[in-house]
Amino acid sequence: MRNLKLILAYDGSDFCGFAPQPGRRSVFSELKAAIEKLLKRKIKITGASRTDSGVHTLGQVISFKSKIRIPKSKLPLALNNLLPEDIRVMQVQLVGSKFNARFSAKSKEYEYLIYNGHIKPPHLKNLVWHLRPKLNLSRMRRAAQILKGRHDFSSFCASGHSHKNLVRTIYQITIKKKQLVLFGDRKIQVISLKFRGDGFLYRMVRNLVGTLVGVGMGKIDLTQLKNILKAKDRKLAGRTAPACGLCLIKVIY
Amino acid sequence: MRNLKLILAYDGSDFCGFAPQPGRRSVFSELKAAIEKLLKRKIKITGASRTDSGVHTLGQVISFKSKIRIPKSKLPLALNNLLPEDIRVMQVQLVGSKFNARFSAKSKEYEYLIYNGHIKPPHLKNLVWHLRPKLNLSRMRRAAQILKGRHDFSSFCASGHSHKNLVRTIYQITIKKKQLVLFGDRKIQVISLKFRGDGFLYRMVRNLVGTLVGVGMGKIDLTQLKNILKAKDRKLAGRTAPACGLCLIKVIY
Repeated sequence: MRNLKLILAYDGSDFCGFAPQPGRRSVFSELKAAIEKLLKRKIKITGASRTDSGVHTLGQVISFKSKIRIPKSKLPLALNNLLPEDIRVMQVQLVGSKFNARFSAKSKEYEYLIYNGHIKPPHLKNLVWHLRPKLNLSRMRRAAQILKGRHDFSSFCASGHSHKNLVRTIYQITIKKKQLVLFGDRKIQVISLKFRGDGFLYRMVRNLVGTLVGVGMGKIDLTQLKNILKAKDRKLAGRTAPACGLCLIKVIY
Repeated sequence: MRNLKLILAYDGSDFCGFAPQPGRRSVFSELKAAIEKLLKRKIKITGASRTDSGVHTLGQVISFKSKIRIPKSKLPLALNNLLPEDIRVMQVQLVGSKFNARFSAKSKEYEYLIYNGHIKPPHLKNLVWHLRPKLNLSRMRRAAQILKGRHDFSSFCASGHSHKNLVRTIYQITIKKKQLVLFGDRKIQVISLKFRGDGFLYRMVRNLVGTLVGVGMGKIDLTQLKNILKAKDRKLAGRTAPACGLCLIKVIY
């Protein structure tokens, strides 16, 4: 038996999310179907992160065990030929028998993009959150310092979760302006919020972004933010930022 | 009566094109419906370019006459609130009574993007043409020099057109590497082909790109290219590049 680690990129726009849901198009189901078609047998796959509908990734990781004889360098092309264009296998690695995409993960990195201008570029409709009121980035950076570190993040965890322990450590939050480049010569300025931590609760990144945006708009001050964190009560924090702006950048093992 | 010029950006992926087609979603119909809803009367709009299904724009222009009393600075927001997210009115200008978006156009600029690597990034699925065989850019640049200038471009005009005169002038073709930036820190290298000319025939840009790619892959040599241009026969030129990589950057008046 070989243990395989696959690194995936996908555009989450047209999926119900990573996890399967009856009658809906999930990343998990598309991927499982492609791998089983290639290997001609049933397999059990594990994903590092259950991304929500609309959430993107450049570095989702899945693992599975198989007696597969196909050289690992040929696997990405073989699988990509069977997968829809919005999921791509970027890399395949052979890993030790104890490796598990979910439980072996040491930390994760996410990026969230906000378009903070008047007219949202149509090519970014599924890739950024559009907010018109001008955000105060230096206030948001001060707020990020409060959120950084080891805390019980109950106030930022959506209901419906199955976490037993709500304590997580955020190693870093970086908020900066970024220039996107697509068609044309004009760069599109967005705000990039990056989060690196040992793990994130259900919708935690989107809830952190929603709250940081509340701070950036002057609706939540830093003392309130400290109280929100202490209160361990989801109702007190800011709204949940929409899924489309979020991307799981990488999973570190 | 005021004569209005609107500059539009749209993602062409989910449209049957600019021009209306029965039972299908066109840019023209969406736009006409939004303007008529806002103005509460029927209007006649003219577009600079009939972009195909899947073709994008950052600078399509439409014009229409109206007794509208809404200040022009308020029009983009008012119309964008009525339009779907994949069409945005970027700018509104008041123009002289003789201005016509189609017939007053002096020149147009297009950009075509090619992803020339192994695995097409999923977020670019509708924005670039994916070609695996490595293209020879210096050969393509030499071919571009042959295509530049004033020629009868019959060999690059798709059937089903209604042009009377097939002579056009291409002022410039620029072929270079470009770094796209979206999520993450890694830039995505693509090949950008820019075309500026006094006008382009039906599917001409996509046919030029298909032929230039034939040159870049070593399937068409420069002598053949000269003969293709001279022959005025569409069957001799290369294939039509897919719509998704093409963007109308701007229309110059």
